[in-house]
Formats: sequence, C-alpha cells, structure tokens
Amino acid sequence: MNDGKISLVLMLSYNGARYSGFAKQKDGSVITVQDEIERALATLFRRPVETVCAGRTDAGVHAREQFVSCVFELAEIESRTSYSIGVSMNALTPDDVVVKRVQFAPPTFSARFDAIAREYRYRIVCGPTPPLFLSEFTWWRKGRLDVSAMRDAASYLVGEHDFKSFCKAASAQGKTTMRRIESIDIVEEEHLGEQCLAVRIIGNAFLHSMVRTIVGTLVQVGAGNRDASWVADVLAACDRSAAGETAPAHGLVFWHVEYPTGILSNEMV
Amino acid sequence: MNDGKISLVLMLSYNGARYSGFAKQKDGSVITVQDEIERALATLFRRPVETVCAGRTDAGVHAREQFVSCVFELAEIESRTSYSIGVSMNALTPDDVVVKRVQFAPPTFSARFDAIAREYRYRIVCGPTPPLFLSEFTWWRKGRLDVSAMRDAASYLVGEHDFKSFCKAASAQGKTTMRRIESIDIVEEEHLGEQCLAVRIIGNAFLHSMVRTIVGTLVQVGAGNRDASWVADVLAACDRSAAGETAPAHGLVFWHVEYPTGILSNEMV
Repeated sequence: MNDGKISLVLMLSYNGARYSGFAKQKDGSVITVQDEIERALATLFRRPVETVCAGRTDAGVHAREQFVSCVFELAEIESRTSYSIGVSMNALTPDDVVVKRVQFAPPTFSARFDAIAREYRYRIVCGPTPPLFLSEFTWWRKGRLDVSAMRDAASYLVGEHDFKSFCKAASAQGKTTMRRIESIDIVEEEHLGEQCLAVRIIGNAFLHSMVRTIVGTLVQVGAGNRDASWVADVLAACDRSAAGETAPAHGLVFWHVEYPTGILSNEMV
Repeated sequence: MNDGKISLVLMLSYNGARYSGFAKQKDGSVITVQDEIERALATLFRRPVETVCAGRTDAGVHAREQFVSCVFELAEIESRTSYSIGVSMNALTPDDVVVKRVQFAPPTFSARFDAIAREYRYRIVCGPTPPLFLSEFTWWRKGRLDVSAMRDAASYLVGEHDFKSFCKAASAQGKTTMRRIESIDIVEEEHLGEQCLAVRIIGNAFLHSMVRTIVGTLVQVGAGNRDASWVADVLAACDRSAAGETAPAHGLVFWHVEYPTGILSNEMV
C-alpha cells in the first residue's frame, strides 16, 4: 500500500498571534496555521493534501519548531528538490508562517506518532513595568516570583502521571490523560536586553492546555499563594478545577520536537 | 540662579515603532516620545516642563536606555519620592513608553551634556527566511554577511574622525562633524531562539543617522560589494553620498548611556 510513496516533512516556525491555533477547524470559520500550510501544499501539488502535525498548538501560541508530515506518490516528488519545495512553500504561505526545513521520510512516518519528545518554553516577565521588546512573547506579571519554590513545585510533576487536572476539561473525556514529563527547568533568560523567566518543559506528549495550566499552577506557588507541595494535591485530584489558571497563550512557544535519529533526511530520494 | 533647584532624571525605554522619533517637532503635527513625556510631566507637576535628552533617536528607533532631565524647584519635588514619580509617570505615559528609573542630580546636570558615552546596538538577521520573533527589532537581509570583513571595515571607524560622510546631509551644515568612536563590536547574538548579528557601537556622541549609515556601509562590505578598506575612503570623502545606505530604523536600539560616577542618585534630596 505504501509502495512508491514517500513522506514529505516540513519544519515550520510561526507567530501564532493571528491564528486560531494550528489545527484546521471543521467549519472553516477561522484561520489556522494548518489551513495556510494545506492551501500552499494544494497549490504546489495541484491536489488536496492532508497533513499531520507534531503538536496542535492553541490560538495565539507560537512555534519555533513545528513538524508537519504528508504522504505523496514518489512521482509527485521526483521532479522537485527539498530546496525548491521550501522556496515555493515560503512564497505561498503568509509572512508569519515560515518553512525552515524540508525533509523526507519513509511513507509510514508520522510527525505526530514518531515524535519521541516535545519541548515547550513559556516566558514570564516579572516587574513593575511591562517589557517593551518581548511583549508579544511573554506574560507580564507585576509581582515577584519565588523561583526556588517554583522549582520545588515543578519537581512533583516530573515523571509519568495522570495529568487530568492540567487538561482542558472538555478535552479529557474518554481518553487517557497519562503523560510523562522528562524535565521542567526554570531558567532566567535575557532577550533584547530584557530579563524573563523561562519554564522549559520536555515530555513525551502533552494534553490540551497542559503546559499553560502547569505554568499557571507554578505561578500560584511562585507568587506565594500556595506551597510547593500543593502541586502534588493538584495532580492527585484529577480535576481541572484543582489547578491554577491557564497562563496566557502568547507567552508559549512550541520549541523543539525530537524524532528517532536517522528517520528524517535532508536528501532527495 | 540654581539656588533651591534640582534636576529630575528619568531613564526611559520605548518601542519607537509608533513615534516620529524622540524630539518634539515645532509644528506638533506628529507624535514623538518627548511629547508624551512632557505631557505626562506637565500633568504631574501642573505646569509646562522642558526636557533635555541624552540622544535624539529617529522615527522608528527604539530605546532600552534613554535619559531625560528637567529642572524643578526643590519645593516642587519635596512632597514626592522617586518611587511615586515613577509610578505616576508610568500611569500617565502610553504603554510603549516606560519610565524604568527615576533619579536626581544637581540642577546643572544635563542628560545631554553630561553623558560621557553612548551605546547603540543594531541587529541584522541574515538568512533565506525572515525572523518571526525578532521581526520588529531586526533588519532582515536574505544574503550572508562576511563578519570578519565587517570587523576589518569597522576598525577604520574607531577613534576620533570627521564623520561627515555618515551624517544626514541636511543636518551637517555649519556644525562640527568630529566624533569619537570608542569601539565597534560585531557579535553573534541569539534572542528567542533566533540568530542575529549585533553591531554594538560605543562613542562619545553621534551625528544624525550616523549609526544607521555606519551599519549600511559595513553591510556593503559584509555583502562583498566593497573591500574593507573602502570604508577609509568613505571617511576621507566627507560626503554623505560616498557612504552606504541608511539601515532601516527598526533594527536600532539606543542601548546605554554612561554618566560620570556619582552624579546621579536614587535617593531623594
């Protein structure tokens, strides 16, 4: 069935501000990143193209590395190079969606199911005045945060757990909410001369709004409203209402996706 | 004449995108940062206030550190603290102009004439696709730049020279165009996961459009259109038409101003 087929794999970056998330919507009433990518692919390959992504980001969430895969007949690809596909795609997509890399993989490859780890970074600016150069990409909070307490709180989340408390309630129905977090690092960063706090989360996969709910929960601890150990209670509750608020979308960047070594190639077949 | 007076010194940051530069214009037909600051000071102190700045940035240029000074009667300040002035000013200025620090100095202090060094940073992104997270603060150029050649070219500009070739022609009339550049460092930086090249220029003072013209000229060398030694010819020509293009305003940030140690205080008198 896969004879003579190949997967085309695109690594995208996007500024999510203008989009109602990555995933196309059934009624087509909003603009999504997937709409733009599939429209460009359809123009380039002169037929409808279905894509699969590594992670469905929410409205307003940005991506530094989002992977998208789609299956083609070898004959559709043979007259092209990864370079020519990249140039064409960037000519066909809006300025805030950029194809950074074009690769190929076996036809069984899925940008979603073959991903072995995903990293998200969430950035917070603390201080009396708002950031001016990072305002589109950080959550500004006036109060100070106790980073050490936040690190203690985060340690309860590392490992394999039922993250139902950290999943948008409507999305948790009838599906497993078990996920494994490899690490949560909370790091001071400086960008364009402005200080921020980055919550870097690596895991096998994430539930709907999971990263933003984790950040909203850690901020409750950092702000001194809760003890670090409260996070263990939140996890045990398996109830979204136990956790903190969902942190604003614009502070989140889908940062990196890990695939098994050697599965993706830069070379033409 | 200065008896019973004091200088109020504000350190500002601003996103210059919306403004026709720092300096107020005679006809008041455009919006400038100085308009916003003087309007806020006038509201706070209930009288017109004249300000002096460390550097008059052009339309679209940003500032991480811009200093502004203005003279008050001690009696106007005595009932206030630096903190209360900062909070009030930030309530009275638009979101893209932020007072980061409020200090005091002797009444003879001038944010312009007491500055002993000024630093500007200009950022360039090179590559086939545009930056998505730094687009407001960098000049995107598709081609590669030879950084080593740019460093060689920059070395001709360090020291005391007549920079008339690097000054907007109309502004050079009848004034000295001698300036001293302390250093030009060209550094690879990463912000929000995107690579850029920063041209960091420190000097005693700068002419109108001087930093952007230096950058536009260095880019001619980096792009391979000119040899590094061409910059010596540009300097010697004392003619704006000899230099490269003026680099776009949005890549430039007024980064830092140096004042003599001890002249500024955070404490109330």
